[in-house]
Amino acid sequence: MDWHETDIRVRYAETDQMGIAHHSNYLVWFETARGEFCRSKGFTYRSMEQEADALMVVAESYIRYKSPAFYDDVLTIRTRVHELRSRSVRFAYEVVRRSDETMIAAGETMHVVTDWEKKVRSWPPFFRDLLVGTDDAPLPDTPPS
Amino acid sequence: MDWHETDIRVRYAETDQMGIAHHSNYLVWFETARGEFCRSKGFTYRSMEQEADALMVVAESYIRYKSPAFYDDVLTIRTRVHELRSRSVRFAYEVVRRSDETMIAAGETMHVVTDWEKKVRSWPPFFRDLLVGTDDAPLPDTPPS
Amino acid sequence: MDWHETDIRVRYAETDQMGIAHHSNYLVWFETARGEFCRSKGFTYRSMEQEADALMVVAESYIRYKSPAFYDDVLTIRTRVHELRSRSVRFAYEVVRRSDETMIAAGETMHVVTDWEKKVRSWPPFFRDLLVGTDDAPLPDTPPS
Amino acid sequence: MDWHETDIRVRYAETDQMGIAHHSNYLVWFETARGEFCRSKGFTYRSMEQEADALMVVAESYIRYKSPAFYDDVLTIRTRVHELRSRSVRFAYEVVRRSDETMIAAGETMHVVTDWEKKVRSWPPFFRDLLVGTDDAPLPDTPPS
Repeated sequence: MDWHETDIRVRYAETDQMGIAHHSNYLVWFETARGEFCRSKGFTYRSMEQEADALMVVAESYIRYKSPAFYDDVLTIRTRVHELRSRSVRFAYEVVRRSDETMIAAGETMHVVTDWEKKVRSWPPFFRDLLVGTDDAPLPDTPPS
Repeated sequence: MDWHETDIRVRYAETDQMGIAHHSNYLVWFETARGEFCRSKGFTYRSMEQEADALMVVAESYIRYKSPAFYDDVLTIRTRVHELRSRSVRFAYEVVRRSDETMIAAGETMHVVTDWEKKVRSWPPFFRDLLVGTDDAPLPDTPPS
Repeated sequence: MDWHETDIRVRYAETDQMGIAHHSNYLVWFETARGEFCRSKGFTYRSMEQEADALMVVAESYIRYKSPAFYDDVLTIRTRVHELRSRSVRFAYEVVRRSDETMIAAGETMHVVTDWEKKVRSWPPFFRDLLVGTDDAPLPDTPPS
Repeated sequence: MDWHETDIRVRYAETDQMGIAHHSNYLVWFETARGEFCRSKGFTYRSMEQEADALMVVAESYIRYKSPAFYDDVLTIRTRVHELRSRSVRFAYEVVRRSDETMIAAGETMHVVTDWEKKVRSWPPFFRDLLVGTDDAPLPDTPPS
C-alpha cells in the first residue's frame, strides 16, 4: 500500500470540555497530511495554487471517529490517493495514535480542481503526474505543464 | 418535515486564503445548530451533560459541500433528527445562504450517548423524549428505552 | 461612553479540556464585535474591504482574562473606538457574561489600514466618517484626512 | 539568553481571506511552544496538569504583529520564562520565519497557577524547579514534589 505518514501532536486548543480532541480538527489534520503527501511527491500544494492556478476545493468529507485522541498525543495520519479523475481527486486517511497503535479515525475527502475564480478545470499535468507517482520510482519524463 | 432553523454569520477567522469559509467550520456550525435544536425542544445540551451525565459523542460525520460560503454571509442551518436509537442519534443538516437561498451544504452526524467516563449508555428518558417531541404536539406514546 | 454591544454564545468547539473557553477565541469574538460595530455605524467591513480597497490589519492585541467563560454562556462584547489616527485605529473591548454581569475580560486591538497589497494607506474618508460617527448624530465637521 | 525554539508550519486552515495567517492563531502557536518548552526542561505540561493538579491558566496576553505569515511558512517560535513568581509565570515569545529570518511577531502571556477547581495555588516545586532549570546545567538536586 502506498500510504504516506505524517505525524501531528494534539494541541491544547484542539481539546474540548469532554477532554478529547474536538472532531472538527480531524479535517484540519487531513489537510496538513495532504500538504505533506504532496511534499513527499516532490511538490508543494502552495506552488500548485500559486504557479499553476489550480486549487483542490473540498467537495465532500467523511470521517468515522473510532477512539478519542487526547492532548499531547502524537497521531500518525496515513494518507493516500484513493481515486484520481480528470478534474477531481479522492483521498483516504487513517489516524493512529503512535504510542499504542490505537486506531483513532478513518476518513475520506473528495476535491474538485478549480482555478482561483472557482471554475472547475482539469489537473495541471505536471502536478497530476507527481501526485500519482511513487516515491521509489518517479516517472523520469514527467513533462512540465 | 421537522427542520429546526438556526442562523449563523460567517466569521472572518472562518475564511481561508481561497476567500471562502474553511470546510472544517461546518462541523462547528452543525454543533451550534444541534445546541439550538435542543433548546427549541425545551432543554439545553449543557444541562444534559451536567445533570444527566449524558454526552453525545460524535462517531461519524459526512458533509457534501455544494457552493462556497463567504465572509459575513448569514447561513441558515436546518437541523433534524434523522434516526434515534436507544444509545445513539443521527442528525441531518442543510446549510442555505439566507440572502439568495443558495444551497451551501448538506450533511449528517452520528452520535453515541456516553457518560463522562466515555462509556456508552442509553438515553436519559427525559431528554430523549424531549428530543423527539415536536414543539406543537409531543408524541404521547414515545416508548421508553 | 459610546460602547456598542454584541452578544455571542460560547460554542462547544471553543472550550478546552479545562472546561472553559480557550483564550484564543477572544480575538475571534473581538473581530465579530468589530464587524457588528461597523454595521451599527451604517456600513459593513466587507464592503470596506471590497469596495474601498481598505483592510484593517491587526498590528497589536492585548487581553486581560479576568474570569472564565463556559460553554453556552451568552457573552456581551462591548466595543468602542479608542483612538483613530489617519492610518490606524485602536479598538477597546469588554466582555461580560450576560446572565450575571461577571466581567470576563477586557482588551484592545490596534489596526493599520492597508490596501489588498498590504501597503499602508489612509482611511477611505467615507468609512472613517461613519466609524467615528454616532448613531444618533454623526458629527458633521469630521475633518477629512 | 535562554530561548527555546519550536518550529511550526502554518496550516491552510489558519489563513484567512487576506491570504495571511489569522492573528488568533499566534496564541495557539505560543501554547504549542510552551508545551515544547516544558518538554525541553524535562517534563510535559500534560503530566503537570494530571499528576500535580496544577494548571497554567492564561491571565494576560499581548502580541505585536510585525509582518504577515503565509500558508506553508515554517515559523520558529522562540520561548523563554520572562518572570517566575510563587503563583504565576510570564512567558515571552518571538516568532521568526525560518526561511528568511523575518521577524513575524513578538508577544507575552501571563499565567496563574491553579488547581482543577480553578483555585489559585503555588507551583508544585518539582515542576517549578524544572521550568527555571537550564538545558545545559540542570540542578542535580531537584527534589521531587
